[in-house]
Amino acid sequence: MYNFEFQNPVKIIFGKGEISKVGLNIPKGSKILLTYGGGSIFKNGVYDQVKSAIKVFDVIEFGGIEPNPHYETLMKAVEIAKTESITFLLSVGGGSVLDGTKFIAAAVLFTKGDPWHILSRRAPVQGAIPIGAVLTLPATGSEMNSGAVITRVEFQEKLSFMSPLVMPKFSILDPEVIFSLPDRQVANGIVDSFVHVIEQYLTFPVNSPIQDRFAESILKTLIEEGPKVLANRNDYESASNLMWSSTMALNGLIGAGVPQDWATHMIGHELTAYHGIDHARTLAIVLPGVMHIKRNQKKDKILQLGERVWGISEGNDDDRIKLTISKTVEFFESVGIPTKLPEYNVGTETIDSICDRFKKRGYKVGEKADIGPTEIRLILEDRL
Amino acid sequence: MYNFEFQNPVKIIFGKGEISKVGLNIPKGSKILLTYGGGSIFKNGVYDQVKSAIKVFDVIEFGGIEPNPHYETLMKAVEIAKTESITFLLSVGGGSVLDGTKFIAAAVLFTKGDPWHILSRRAPVQGAIPIGAVLTLPATGSEMNSGAVITRVEFQEKLSFMSPLVMPKFSILDPEVIFSLPDRQVANGIVDSFVHVIEQYLTFPVNSPIQDRFAESILKTLIEEGPKVLANRNDYESASNLMWSSTMALNGLIGAGVPQDWATHMIGHELTAYHGIDHARTLAIVLPGVMHIKRNQKKDKILQLGERVWGISEGNDDDRIKLTISKTVEFFESVGIPTKLPEYNVGTETIDSICDRFKKRGYKVGEKADIGPTEIRLILEDRL
Repeated sequence: MYNFEFQNPVKIIFGKGEISKVGLNIPKGSKILLTYGGGSIFKNGVYDQVKSAIKVFDVIEFGGIEPNPHYETLMKAVEIAKTESITFLLSVGGGSVLDGTKFIAAAVLFTKGDPWHILSRRAPVQGAIPIGAVLTLPATGSEMNSGAVITRVEFQEKLSFMSPLVMPKFSILDPEVIFSLPDRQVANGIVDSFVHVIEQYLTFPVNSPIQDRFAESILKTLIEEGPKVLANRNDYESASNLMWSSTMALNGLIGAGVPQDWATHMIGHELTAYHGIDHARTLAIVLPGVMHIKRNQKKDKILQLGERVWGISEGNDDDRIKLTISKTVEFFESVGIPTKLPEYNVGTETIDSICDRFKKRGYKVGEKADIGPTEIRLILEDRL
Repeated sequence: MYNFEFQNPVKIIFGKGEISKVGLNIPKGSKILLTYGGGSIFKNGVYDQVKSAIKVFDVIEFGGIEPNPHYETLMKAVEIAKTESITFLLSVGGGSVLDGTKFIAAAVLFTKGDPWHILSRRAPVQGAIPIGAVLTLPATGSEMNSGAVITRVEFQEKLSFMSPLVMPKFSILDPEVIFSLPDRQVANGIVDSFVHVIEQYLTFPVNSPIQDRFAESILKTLIEEGPKVLANRNDYESASNLMWSSTMALNGLIGAGVPQDWATHMIGHELTAYHGIDHARTLAIVLPGVMHIKRNQKKDKILQLGERVWGISEGNDDDRIKLTISKTVEFFESVGIPTKLPEYNVGTETIDSICDRFKKRGYKVGEKADIGPTEIRLILEDRL
């Protein structure tokens, strides 16, 4: 394996009934901005649980943070946080609300320059208001990492930033929040988590058996437990296993000391930026193309994925690679997520736009930084 | 799985050459007490690497911390730390040096009462001088956890304590330190790590596939990579995998949300307390007895261990359990560690003493707290 540094201080509070502990984990005397999304927390009881657990605090609420949280919306919260001298941000929602809250946390204290530069120029975060999270949807892993992805609607840009300063101080993961999720969000969460693992695993071997086996452990668990949750939304044990898989998929551990890809995410972000397609769905579209077009470079790990996760141990290498890709596609489709561009009414024009955009940016993606406009065209044409 | 809390803020700095970064991770202006053991760090070059990396600091040295670090020795360091107004403890050694350093860190700031009570009465740690670690031996996992085990020679007592306050701020893991280790220490490290995993895994099922698979991942990696390190001490890649396995075996992750046993450790500690047997060797002696005597209670997990780790999938349950125990014994013996009491010149008198001691203490051990003097006698008699 490669040399690495790993540090993840997020306190995880996991299990049913644990939302009641939220107040105990917030510093006394904090002035809280409670952030949330479209209002599902009012229907599933999470809002009431949180509010009764933070009664002793001064709380201001900021709702309406969108999926693929909008810079424009978040900057309104930044103004409120400044005006109201907020000292703690409590994110009650899924990965989008939490990503948005991470940006708010950093933007409030980004006093030297335009906060947009945190995203557009990767300007270093200067400080951050402390964040706590009550997660309502297992998917993005944001509850135990330092990253966030923000969309600026007016520019059709979806960009990310990372800073240890925006890692939540704590994240409460009560799997019961899954009981009331619609199929679409559960399926998105399964696929998002699956592809997070793949991006840190499906590269080339560096003799890292712990990281590889942990990655395969998460993939196998998602494949087993994900469909159980879809079939029976009140299966607490499967919901727990899905939720913990999702957090472990992107908390830095399986990616420590190994090459990472992220091409699928970088290309997928553009499909969301142009067409508003759900993040996980863009990954389900793009990943099979990346696997197919980079099948030679990724050969050893695709064969390992096939054998250890999908149980494919017969046939020549080409056959096994093809079968591994089709098993992966079948899994995405089995949870109800289409994997071809036309199923989302996306055609060649968008491919042209995305390739142009990568040409202008001038950098390449993938574990060998060798996926540029030419390869992206091949990958997306494979998905027509 | 059970509800759980998990937080592990230790910064891991992993890989060859990384010892040179030690100074960068210590707060400026610190007055350092550099703690070490029997002097191997002078022979393997680690001392020189550390010293040249902390030139800018005021450093006092305290050597001679024993394997199974002695309370009596550590209290001398506590006096020095107080007299010299030490502000940072740098542990350069294996798990014993680090455990000892954790105790020093807590004892210096244990101002209300006798520091011995931290161990004898589990008195809560009141504060701790910050600790950094340069690990020279993969085994105990102390580099990424909150625990320490200390021996008081005059009482023949070996006792543990835990506190998040004594977790290292950072631990530097350079696998090259393994190159100069004697076989005995490598073998001990393999078995110690193996049994750490077992104590958190071989209990009863609670539907925790992530924790189970991670545990099995570490066991499989130890079984594969351990013997490679023994066969070729300069195999950097295997040394890396052994070292990372050892850390992951006891950093809280695989034990989060699942029942834990620790009977093997608790009984093993007595063998060290009475006879000075290496810690790992006591585990290799006791574990097969625990597996045999508690084979009904642990049946499901022993069968799972047999199938997933040792590849045992045929025969009736009894046969599979027997084979799983004997495969485990064979593994310990294959790395040169005897597993029967007479091989250490220990007989029935010691069994009597240990049972008496547990009778006096009045508590039982194991995942169901049902291993008391009677069961301990059966376990140890199984190892005669």
